[in-house]
Amino acid sequence: MDTVLLLPRLLVPVRPRLQVLEQMAVVLEGETIKAVLPRSEAIATYQDAGRIELPEHVLLPGFINMHTHSAMSLLRGYADDLNLQVWLNEHIWPIEKAFVGPDFVHDGTRLAIAEMLRGGTTFFNDLYFFPEVTAAAAVEAGIRACIGLPVIDVPTAWAGDENDYIDKGLRVSESWQNEPLLNTAFSPHAPYSVGDDALRRIAKISTERDLRVHMHVLESGWEVDESIRQHGKPTLERLHDVGLLNERLLAVHMTQLNGTDLTALAGADVNVIHCPESNLKLGNGICEVGKLHDHGVNLALGTDSAASNNDLDLLAESRTAALLAKGYSADPCVMNAFQALEMLTINAAKALGMSNQLGSIEAGKLADLCAVRLDSLHTTPMYDVVSHLIYTVSSQQVSHVWVGGRMLIQDGGFLHLDVDEIIDKAKYWEQKITAQARAARSKEYNLHE
Amino acid sequence: MDTVLLLPRLLVPVRPRLQVLEQMAVVLEGETIKAVLPRSEAIATYQDAGRIELPEHVLLPGFINMHTHSAMSLLRGYADDLNLQVWLNEHIWPIEKAFVGPDFVHDGTRLAIAEMLRGGTTFFNDLYFFPEVTAAAAVEAGIRACIGLPVIDVPTAWAGDENDYIDKGLRVSESWQNEPLLNTAFSPHAPYSVGDDALRRIAKISTERDLRVHMHVLESGWEVDESIRQHGKPTLERLHDVGLLNERLLAVHMTQLNGTDLTALAGADVNVIHCPESNLKLGNGICEVGKLHDHGVNLALGTDSAASNNDLDLLAESRTAALLAKGYSADPCVMNAFQALEMLTINAAKALGMSNQLGSIEAGKLADLCAVRLDSLHTTPMYDVVSHLIYTVSSQQVSHVWVGGRMLIQDGGFLHLDVDEIIDKAKYWEQKITAQARAARSKEYNLHE
Repeated sequence: MDTVLLLPRLLVPVRPRLQVLEQMAVVLEGETIKAVLPRSEAIATYQDAGRIELPEHVLLPGFINMHTHSAMSLLRGYADDLNLQVWLNEHIWPIEKAFVGPDFVHDGTRLAIAEMLRGGTTFFNDLYFFPEVTAAAAVEAGIRACIGLPVIDVPTAWAGDENDYIDKGLRVSESWQNEPLLNTAFSPHAPYSVGDDALRRIAKISTERDLRVHMHVLESGWEVDESIRQHGKPTLERLHDVGLLNERLLAVHMTQLNGTDLTALAGADVNVIHCPESNLKLGNGICEVGKLHDHGVNLALGTDSAASNNDLDLLAESRTAALLAKGYSADPCVMNAFQALEMLTINAAKALGMSNQLGSIEAGKLADLCAVRLDSLHTTPMYDVVSHLIYTVSSQQVSHVWVGGRMLIQDGGFLHLDVDEIIDKAKYWEQKITAQARAARSKEYNLHE
Repeated sequence: MDTVLLLPRLLVPVRPRLQVLEQMAVVLEGETIKAVLPRSEAIATYQDAGRIELPEHVLLPGFINMHTHSAMSLLRGYADDLNLQVWLNEHIWPIEKAFVGPDFVHDGTRLAIAEMLRGGTTFFNDLYFFPEVTAAAAVEAGIRACIGLPVIDVPTAWAGDENDYIDKGLRVSESWQNEPLLNTAFSPHAPYSVGDDALRRIAKISTERDLRVHMHVLESGWEVDESIRQHGKPTLERLHDVGLLNERLLAVHMTQLNGTDLTALAGADVNVIHCPESNLKLGNGICEVGKLHDHGVNLALGTDSAASNNDLDLLAESRTAALLAKGYSADPCVMNAFQALEMLTINAAKALGMSNQLGSIEAGKLADLCAVRLDSLHTTPMYDVVSHLIYTVSSQQVSHVWVGGRMLIQDGGFLHLDVDEIIDKAKYWEQKITAQARAARSKEYNLHE
């Protein structure tokens, strides 16, 4: 197996905590990190190894995007500055109904993957229709992913009813079980859009097969009322009753927490996936990460889709998360830069049950890494590299990306993806969707004439 | 005079409102915009003019940073994640006391100017000591600026007491009055740090000479209590009583507004300068821009200094402003992308009393412009260019910048500043400041031993 030494100016391994190391080498062998040791020692020990000098760079674990709907990148900025119900009912859902199929998912997912890799993201946790297409696109692009198996009580082009969704999901999960880059998670859409029987069946499968359950939970105030109206009990009580409130749950959004919820989440080791920019943009509420931290709840970050964000930039998301936590709690100490970096890396790995393999630069872990250039105007001077990463660095400064030891991006350029072709495909969809929107609008005007 | 045609793919002139134009030309002559007209007509009319094709770009007015302390870029990320009082008393002020002088201000301001220009900012409204040094650095770098003339009831290396500050400020104001790139504003630091007599004298000068007054106002809850304790009345009542509550006031931060304040601000045509990232980071409160909008108050944006932000990226600041306004008010319609763009441009020009000269691309205005590339992964597809500018574009995508018709940045590279030298100077200060911080820390440890 080839051995390669990465020789960065600075190394932030994330574990051990709070360390910023100089004059270090990270030794890659195959898909894993073989060793982390002083530069001189590495060079003496591995004399025949390849060397990659990163003299102006900091080397980090690859970032993990814990919530997105990749294919929706084709709807980036399609309908902004609108009320959630108007946004969904009048814009997003009609367009999805018209266009979502294997081709849309393939082209949109490839666009999303390219953007994510370019920004240092090496793992994404997805939730969308046609998950077998998303899975294939991820493997083809060499990125690691957890593929959500969607379940919703609405028929779509992909499946008919809840049991059909679950059955199809199981087949997708089985068909990809030997792919090292992938795992799968059941993804019931939300408490208000999946029935008790389906949730119980998902809980059972999740336990038997040790699959994560990836779900929008407590995204908006409307959902809180709806749970009482539909089921006579609060959302988290219902999730507990159907067997989903446990360490396998990836509960996304969580903007509507009360004191009892905090205790319940902490007691059950539920993972909370915070999506600050999407929550802000849709006006859905603000997740109280300070209180979740105080209760010891594991917190990771997601961008949500580019339709509500409008990018998949995890570094920018971590900045928003840290700033918002401070501002909302009126306490500048409630989340520091290192804690924000942990949300992008080791906390996400823990949420996925993969903290032995991912989320830090340690011997024996998978070699999912990124390097960031530090020689720009806006990262000068530098007193604390972690502060710069969270509060200042742009994802455009990510220069190198490795997934499983394979270098995918070098000096800002892709080694394996044809970006022009990906952009051309996205423009093809832009034209189709724009034409459809114009047609819909003409029809609307006719009705009013 | 040389005539140049700028030929962008898209033009967002800001005024008229909401327009996105294709196949247009902007005709520059000397320092001004001579005309905005269809491309074919411009090429036929100005056959001998130079042409700059911008085939993948959108052309915009240059951005206006309405609140910063430029020189503090040398303290970028120096002390993060701390309480405001700890941040100021134990970190920022001791370092300022040790280092702030003409050299620090010169080198720090040049670093800030380079970063601002690189991100499309063509005008900055500054507040710092040694304003004559800031003024000279701005002129030397070819950027437009309003130079704050600081007043504070604490002696510094620059001046002794409040009257000394005002006298020195007047001399700075007079010495630069014929420089076309500059104007000056009196800058009393904050209501709690400047006495009534000084404020009255500033109000009188502001009226007589039509100078703006640039001041931190209602930045934190502490200030609200302090006004009652020190002066027996609320801050805005006191500013009214000393003659400062008028259309020349640039009231920065304003995170502590009540209903009466809103009416008073609207009635007096005060301009509010919103600095969302600094307010969030220091946990000082959130400015209620939705309510200010509803009351018709003119709102513009500032980054604050790189010590509390930690960058001078106005596009990113506008994204934070729009997202935060929606999230905090739980209303996604409270500020849309175009309104955010207005805060960066025409609203700022209005706050400065310069809306006839700046803030939009119209014939007769000064040619302060920037172009942004649109051909990246994360701006694809594109349904609405203004949405992309606010919610997606990185300031790294700014490709061209003009101030007063002079091109300063072309294809992302500076035509007139030596960035390497600016970065080297910043690193020199980083070393000095780091050494001082280490010395201070050693002394502290010795005390505890």
